[in-house]
Amino acid sequence: MAGRVLVNGEAATAVSVFDRGLSYGDGLFETIRFAHGAAPLWSRHMDRLRDGCRRLRLPTPDIAALQGEAMAMAAGMDHAVVRITLTRGLGERGYAPPASPVMTRIVAGFKAPLMGGDAYVAGVRVRWCDTALALQPLLAGLKHLNRLEQVLARAEWSDPAVAEGLMRDVDGRVISGTMTNLFAVLDGQLVTPALDRCGVAGVARAEVLVAMPEVRVRELRPEDLARADEVFLSSSVRGILPVQAVGDTVYGPGPVTRALQQHWRGLGFPMEQA
Amino acid sequence: MAGRVLVNGEAATAVSVFDRGLSYGDGLFETIRFAHGAAPLWSRHMDRLRDGCRRLRLPTPDIAALQGEAMAMAAGMDHAVVRITLTRGLGERGYAPPASPVMTRIVAGFKAPLMGGDAYVAGVRVRWCDTALALQPLLAGLKHLNRLEQVLARAEWSDPAVAEGLMRDVDGRVISGTMTNLFAVLDGQLVTPALDRCGVAGVARAEVLVAMPEVRVRELRPEDLARADEVFLSSSVRGILPVQAVGDTVYGPGPVTRALQQHWRGLGFPMEQA
Repeated sequence: MAGRVLVNGEAATAVSVFDRGLSYGDGLFETIRFAHGAAPLWSRHMDRLRDGCRRLRLPTPDIAALQGEAMAMAAGMDHAVVRITLTRGLGERGYAPPASPVMTRIVAGFKAPLMGGDAYVAGVRVRWCDTALALQPLLAGLKHLNRLEQVLARAEWSDPAVAEGLMRDVDGRVISGTMTNLFAVLDGQLVTPALDRCGVAGVARAEVLVAMPEVRVRELRPEDLARADEVFLSSSVRGILPVQAVGDTVYGPGPVTRALQQHWRGLGFPMEQA
Repeated sequence: MAGRVLVNGEAATAVSVFDRGLSYGDGLFETIRFAHGAAPLWSRHMDRLRDGCRRLRLPTPDIAALQGEAMAMAAGMDHAVVRITLTRGLGERGYAPPASPVMTRIVAGFKAPLMGGDAYVAGVRVRWCDTALALQPLLAGLKHLNRLEQVLARAEWSDPAVAEGLMRDVDGRVISGTMTNLFAVLDGQLVTPALDRCGVAGVARAEVLVAMPEVRVRELRPEDLARADEVFLSSSVRGILPVQAVGDTVYGPGPVTRALQQHWRGLGFPMEQA
């Protein structure tokens, strides 16, 4: 594997087979885009990580240590992605969490993926996934390590011309892409699906919600999407991606998408990022 | 940690930080009870593992290698539990499964937990969990590595006098314990919850279904359980455990429970196991 890694602050490439992250997916992660050594959305990532630790009753993360380690793993790369993984650490066999867990902290640096061609100009093609998201309010919104639904959804296609798959929940509501959040302009209003029952509340989505306070968070149905004026995806790694087609339904990048791409540039992300 | 471990057939205690088992919970596991070197339910464990690999589109497991390694890890212990973990192996960052995954195979041996006191005679106390199971037919029944629901449910209590917690699905149906399956005798008939929408289809449950072909697999509601004549739990590790109380509702071990305990002894499990 490419990449540099720190495990609990030490250069390492392995974790214990008894780590609860491996045994049960008992932990959280963040994937953070660095551009020229800076991570413009860092504080939003840390907000989500703290919230996730609180909801999973994990210890409070050491943000200062994470920041130093993430910057070290991104150093020397113009465009990096740093994955931070926090797990409940070592555990005896069995689901019962240790009374005083010592978290495992993994910080790994990778070269950032660059979108090919004119993804940011003309937009990307996406498809519908058959894999539906289960409704679990206790875990909804979190970027936890239980990601089999996303793995199954992403395994549905291999055509590199399809950049992303859209997922619905088991009741048919549109929720998100497998690795992105979804926005649409409907009747002149920017909307994004509610994520209180399933889905991952993306950090880029959080940035859009603050940058455009008029966004409405609501239930979204496939028929809503079919009549949207603009559709785009948000991702902390990839930025704002116009959607040019969902299956056979074609869209053109519109003014709201362009404004958010401009906002992304203003954050310090490079041109090919937005 | 106690225990002996083989990773891909070699003595080891660690796996790569890039293993998809850790990154996404992308894998399966089995916990197999050995008594004096034999694992009476071995073939049922392998049936479930093969089925899980097929449903998650993992490669077919090497059963012969697993058997040799599991027996080696159990050797020298009168009462052992062997955990087998199979993951989709190393992966680049991202949900897309590798086109040709090389599975990671972890086989770890532990001393079997022995139930204290007269758990098998008088029965165990259990409680209701508030954590509800989401409905996900694509993953239902599998013993996969996405187990945060069980972790949250098991974290609800720490009283050692409570042996297990019962979980309902998000629609209120009774499904299982956090680490056991559930049976009840209702109107003279042995019943167990259907697991086609959530829950883990236990290997001990499969043995009960074969040993008692008259068992009815059906929807079970808390009010059904409240009027049951017998309630017991099944576990490949712990065997057949009579339930003496669910919260304030008290039960006595009855003839069906006793017959299954006798069946368990006949399989070769020791007395304290059933």
